[in-house]
Amino acid sequence: MKITILGGGGFLGRKLAARLAKDGALGGRAIAEMTLFDLAAPATVAAPFPVRCLGGDVADPAAVGAAIPPGTEVVFHLAAVVSAAAEADFDLGMKVNLHGTLAVLQACRALGTRPRVIFTSSVASFGGGQEAVVPDDGRQVPTNSYGAQKAIGELLLQDATRKGFLDAVSLRLPTVMVRPGRPNKAASSFVSAVVREPLLGLATDCPVPPEFAVWICSPRSAMEWFLHAATMDTAPLGIDRGINPPGRSATVAKMLEALEAVAGRAAREKVGFVFDREVFDIVDGWPAAFAATRARRLGFAEQESLEDLVQAFVEDDLAATRAERGL
Amino acid sequence: MKITILGGGGFLGRKLAARLAKDGALGGRAIAEMTLFDLAAPATVAAPFPVRCLGGDVADPAAVGAAIPPGTEVVFHLAAVVSAAAEADFDLGMKVNLHGTLAVLQACRALGTRPRVIFTSSVASFGGGQEAVVPDDGRQVPTNSYGAQKAIGELLLQDATRKGFLDAVSLRLPTVMVRPGRPNKAASSFVSAVVREPLLGLATDCPVPPEFAVWICSPRSAMEWFLHAATMDTAPLGIDRGINPPGRSATVAKMLEALEAVAGRAAREKVGFVFDREVFDIVDGWPAAFAATRARRLGFAEQESLEDLVQAFVEDDLAATRAERGL
Repeated sequence: MKITILGGGGFLGRKLAARLAKDGALGGRAIAEMTLFDLAAPATVAAPFPVRCLGGDVADPAAVGAAIPPGTEVVFHLAAVVSAAAEADFDLGMKVNLHGTLAVLQACRALGTRPRVIFTSSVASFGGGQEAVVPDDGRQVPTNSYGAQKAIGELLLQDATRKGFLDAVSLRLPTVMVRPGRPNKAASSFVSAVVREPLLGLATDCPVPPEFAVWICSPRSAMEWFLHAATMDTAPLGIDRGINPPGRSATVAKMLEALEAVAGRAAREKVGFVFDREVFDIVDGWPAAFAATRARRLGFAEQESLEDLVQAFVEDDLAATRAERGL
Repeated sequence: MKITILGGGGFLGRKLAARLAKDGALGGRAIAEMTLFDLAAPATVAAPFPVRCLGGDVADPAAVGAAIPPGTEVVFHLAAVVSAAAEADFDLGMKVNLHGTLAVLQACRALGTRPRVIFTSSVASFGGGQEAVVPDDGRQVPTNSYGAQKAIGELLLQDATRKGFLDAVSLRLPTVMVRPGRPNKAASSFVSAVVREPLLGLATDCPVPPEFAVWICSPRSAMEWFLHAATMDTAPLGIDRGINPPGRSATVAKMLEALEAVAGRAAREKVGFVFDREVFDIVDGWPAAFAATRARRLGFAEQESLEDLVQAFVEDDLAATRAERGL
């Protein structure tokens, strides 16, 4: 089978490419070819199958068409402009997050072979805030442009599924922690920073108070969910292609407890609290808990504990992050 | 004030233009100019203010920009490809219903003066079917492309409102009955036909059984809702710009009772029942009842009785329909 990862140069895209390269197969079938696509052509990965690395604009139908060659059975659509960036530059967010998804729809439809499309939607497509526990049929009333564009992407791919153009599963990802590398323009950047920076020996300021809760998942859980979404029987989904996977609701205080359990009191003390209104106003609209009953019934794996999550970052990503940042 | 009606050549657009021409004012302020825009330039209306009539493609940003001149305070965006047509021609539906709304967003944003935009969304943006009573916070899981495109339009205009580009109110219109003229490509065309055709002395076949229920409103109610949406204080809406106005749940059997009450037994006997799977499959996904509590609280007028609705068609539209169809 042929697989394409759009956003293949990003954090999750690289992890997914490495995982598929290691497995050599998906759902018990050998991978024949993998295409990694991002704004700049992603670095290749060592794999037992050919890997094509393409650079281009996800909003450019020709570029996306080239990234999804005939015979493609699975498309992971992870390409996006993140929350704070989409809020700061409305046109850029619309271009990548809306017109990009339109280009993906058209490229998949042009294949005529109904590929599986795994779309990363987001918790940011919901409103509700700290008090909400979002039910599986919760209405998406986004409080930010990123979330609105993700909710729109879901509607587009859901209707394209109903029309038989493709076979979509939209995963409304929690905030993924711990992200390697540097702080980024996601409003939720602090969620990773409060663990990552201390593990690198660096001080960091948290822009929200300790009791602030976030709906989170680990990169490991995200990978399991991607692979399950790519291989599951989609018939039980019916017309509703949006999944709230079983993440975990965690306060910053609990994250810091897990950090201390793994790396000691000195690490925890690297974190200060400096309130940032702009960041707070975005993330405060996101719900901090979900029922996720349907996803569990559909076989999506449970999120590991916070301590395991911090430990996994130490094992999987800390050394590379240290090297990348010259620390 | 300047007002624009996009879709000003359609059934509701013409009624709205006539009403505004008659009133000469909106919300207590004199109308300085009205622009009617449709695919073909609409016929003008006699009015105490200048009326511009423009033809063009609602998906063409330049055409839409010309239709929304500087100083426009209220835009009624009624331009759409209807349900069965959007289902039959996916690309046409996407062009008009999605890219058209994007063009409206950009034209309104370009004004820099945050115009009020009244968008006609639809009951078809909800799933649920005959058994559902949709709550005010009901999730939109459309079962057809028209409904998906309308739900997307709502998200676009809601986010544009939050960003301060415009000030949207999205009215999720029930199936409007009685439509004048001829049967059209809306899957719900029969809802008007079962009353209109007998009143014209013509036989008609109803494609769904007598016990099938539909969430309906009259053209008169739609006009009241349009004017209220154009003049209401939108602050109480907050971020949520979607309104389920207080229509009425009516079975075909009840519609025929109202027809008989107004026009006698002979009229009712003009209606036969010939099941049509294609039509049924579209309309069967639409919910037949809504709570509409929020709309009532926000001052949207109650729908009149079915008998009054049939009588209103006789008064307002029967003669013109008879003339138009050469009967």
